[in-house]
Amino acid sequence: MYHNKRSAVSTVPNEDPIRVGFIGLNFSRGWALKTHRPAILQLSSQFVITAVYDENEQMATNTIQQLKLVHATPFSSLELFSSFQHVDMIVVSVQASKQYELLMPLLEFSRRNSNLKYLLIEWAFASNLQQAEKVYQASAIRGLQTVVALQGRKSPYIQRAKELIHENHIGGINSIEISCNACWYGYERPRKFADGMFEMGSGLDLVTTTFGHTMDLLQYITGSYFSKINGLVFNNIPEQMLVDDSGRSMGRTSAKTVPDHLLFHGCLQRGNVPVSCTIKGGKPTKKFTKNFIIDIHGTRGDIKIEGDAGFAEMSNLVLYYSGTRVNDIPIAGANGHPVHPSLDQGKEFMEVYHLRNYDAVHGNIFRLYQSIADFHFNTKNIPRLPSQFIMQGFEFEGFPTLMDGLIIRRLIDSVYKSNLIGATLDVSHILQFPSSI
Amino acid sequence: MYHNKRSAVSTVPNEDPIRVGFIGLNFSRGWALKTHRPAILQLSSQFVITAVYDENEQMATNTIQQLKLVHATPFSSLELFSSFQHVDMIVVSVQASKQYELLMPLLEFSRRNSNLKYLLIEWAFASNLQQAEKVYQASAIRGLQTVVALQGRKSPYIQRAKELIHENHIGGINSIEISCNACWYGYERPRKFADGMFEMGSGLDLVTTTFGHTMDLLQYITGSYFSKINGLVFNNIPEQMLVDDSGRSMGRTSAKTVPDHLLFHGCLQRGNVPVSCTIKGGKPTKKFTKNFIIDIHGTRGDIKIEGDAGFAEMSNLVLYYSGTRVNDIPIAGANGHPVHPSLDQGKEFMEVYHLRNYDAVHGNIFRLYQSIADFHFNTKNIPRLPSQFIMQGFEFEGFPTLMDGLIIRRLIDSVYKSNLIGATLDVSHILQFPSSI
Repeated sequence: MYHNKRSAVSTVPNEDPIRVGFIGLNFSRGWALKTHRPAILQLSSQFVITAVYDENEQMATNTIQQLKLVHATPFSSLELFSSFQHVDMIVVSVQASKQYELLMPLLEFSRRNSNLKYLLIEWAFASNLQQAEKVYQASAIRGLQTVVALQGRKSPYIQRAKELIHENHIGGINSIEISCNACWYGYERPRKFADGMFEMGSGLDLVTTTFGHTMDLLQYITGSYFSKINGLVFNNIPEQMLVDDSGRSMGRTSAKTVPDHLLFHGCLQRGNVPVSCTIKGGKPTKKFTKNFIIDIHGTRGDIKIEGDAGFAEMSNLVLYYSGTRVNDIPIAGANGHPVHPSLDQGKEFMEVYHLRNYDAVHGNIFRLYQSIADFHFNTKNIPRLPSQFIMQGFEFEGFPTLMDGLIIRRLIDSVYKSNLIGATLDVSHILQFPSSI
Repeated sequence: MYHNKRSAVSTVPNEDPIRVGFIGLNFSRGWALKTHRPAILQLSSQFVITAVYDENEQMATNTIQQLKLVHATPFSSLELFSSFQHVDMIVVSVQASKQYELLMPLLEFSRRNSNLKYLLIEWAFASNLQQAEKVYQASAIRGLQTVVALQGRKSPYIQRAKELIHENHIGGINSIEISCNACWYGYERPRKFADGMFEMGSGLDLVTTTFGHTMDLLQYITGSYFSKINGLVFNNIPEQMLVDDSGRSMGRTSAKTVPDHLLFHGCLQRGNVPVSCTIKGGKPTKKFTKNFIIDIHGTRGDIKIEGDAGFAEMSNLVLYYSGTRVNDIPIAGANGHPVHPSLDQGKEFMEVYHLRNYDAVHGNIFRLYQSIADFHFNTKNIPRLPSQFIMQGFEFEGFPTLMDGLIIRRLIDSVYKSNLIGATLDVSHILQFPSSI
């Protein structure tokens, strides 16, 4: 398990830490506070927060004081924040629907900050594909090293699955089946969620979130993009029952225009592998199935990844592996001399891989930050490490970039298009760089 | 479990048994010997074999002698066999690819047998849809009561699942996932199987057999046909390794033109229910999945049907049910008086339904014959029982007819068409009777 070895980063730098300017960090609530903040705290030799942006300057000041960000300056002007010279990396941790309106001016204003090198943004980084293409182009022109929080790639289970396949432990891939339960999009929804989440165009529909993250992981694990796909999208639950924080029905419903069900199938370019994927709304727990399952069947072995929540990028998982490997232990031959056995005499291996105390919500984001530091400080002493890379693709090293994210956004767009026009689509072009650059 | 009650037929008739003329019965081998013969033996007051057809008359004579069919006459002329007056029911138990050439002249010749009432034929009753439509039309014009061996409908597990849904024990159906392993179409195949089985047009490809039987069961259980479907068909294994009777590789391969993989999804007309179905060739046993799974998720409960072989119509299964039913036991109210609870206070029910010693290979065929006898002798004393019925549809009583089979053949044809033209197809028309009749 070479690729899951602990990063050397924690023992390193005598260099200056990466100075982080933050959009979306709030002292009292939110995803950034819950996940990005602990990651930066744990990597305090590598990262330091030097700027906090909030429309409301008092809020930015409060966040800095409450979180004791002693090196940070508050900003309520996006222009001043974006051009602030004491920032090497900007993190934009806001909902998908709000990212485009922030990112486009930010990229323009940031030209005045010659120190700025990194831009880390949350999935899905835009409300739709058109916006996503524009964000990609603007950042490419700006020349920043982008990082997209498709953090599931950093999950140890995903890394292990990729490694098992990469090292040929299951042979060729015969077929793949995926099933996820996207609980928020079913018959009930917690009242605490904003109505906008359940309206098309929010960038938070189950195709963009659950399917998007899951397909990024699948492509990453298998090392292949899709050649053709078909999707059927359902909205069978146009009204959801609101439930309170204890899960009790509040007796009133709210409209939902986002889908509650996706049926997807297609084949991978590499090996023409059949892939089936269903994403279900409805009840959060079915009695006889797990809420997250990836079954990968190979010619010489199988991998199963299971989880209790439909969101692999932020839930702890279990990986099961079974396969036949070449037996490299010499066995006794007829005359007593050792004999090196052939593949046919391979041994059957079984593995259950589970980190009982792994906190995936924090852990995957932590490992994403770790990979940025590994790159920045070249802690792994990789010779001739490039100063920037356009995409991670299927490499173990590095982190997903906007180009990796754009490929998924195009796949998502193809799914909706396939559903709309009732066609199986050739998607082998989604890897292309935008022609306008 | 009303519908699974034992048939009353075994206690009945003082009437003459149904006289059976058989095509495909051989004293030494074959499906008819293995399954039809024991069924008729167990129902010896209801059925008697009076004619056996074989191209080779000596073979027909030998079969009659060896199986001690004391009332049977041998035939080598299809014309004489088909017009033999001492036959009420003809059974054609031959491979799909040989049925059309037998059935078309048989139906014509049989006009001279005014006693002939029933025609029982094996799935898939033709090599392709065009032939299937012609067989249907010829039999409809001839006015026979057809029976198609889609015997999975008679499986006690299928009946139980249908009953649970029919009696509303899982509420509305939210979604369905199906996964089957069609082992013969993978990397290896037993040399004992004829090469023709693995050539397109044999009517024995996995779409026609595994998918066909399974979809017939699904539609029967749910009481709905499909409104739209999409299929992707793969032949990733164009050469199969031949293995001997012990499963050892023979070191040589044979060509395969039939598919090894089907990805199918669609939605049911009733409730717009999303259905996903994958049929895999490849290894007969995956380590972490069952070879046959139907998962039905409802608003108030779930049903899971599992089996060790991808062929539900001839394997023993296990049915799991979990759901909330209205609690009909009064509970104590605040003042000590009994209160009849509402649906919200329903109890959770669990059921594992498994008949440990059920032999599905024989059992389902036996139950098919039983249902013919039930109809013929009206053992259930159904008032105004029609003398003939065109299709079983979704009724518990009766048996699948050629019209039921034709609907599945049309679905199969739509899957291949969907794959070929790359389109999601509207299939709501497949229920129509042929316009030429």
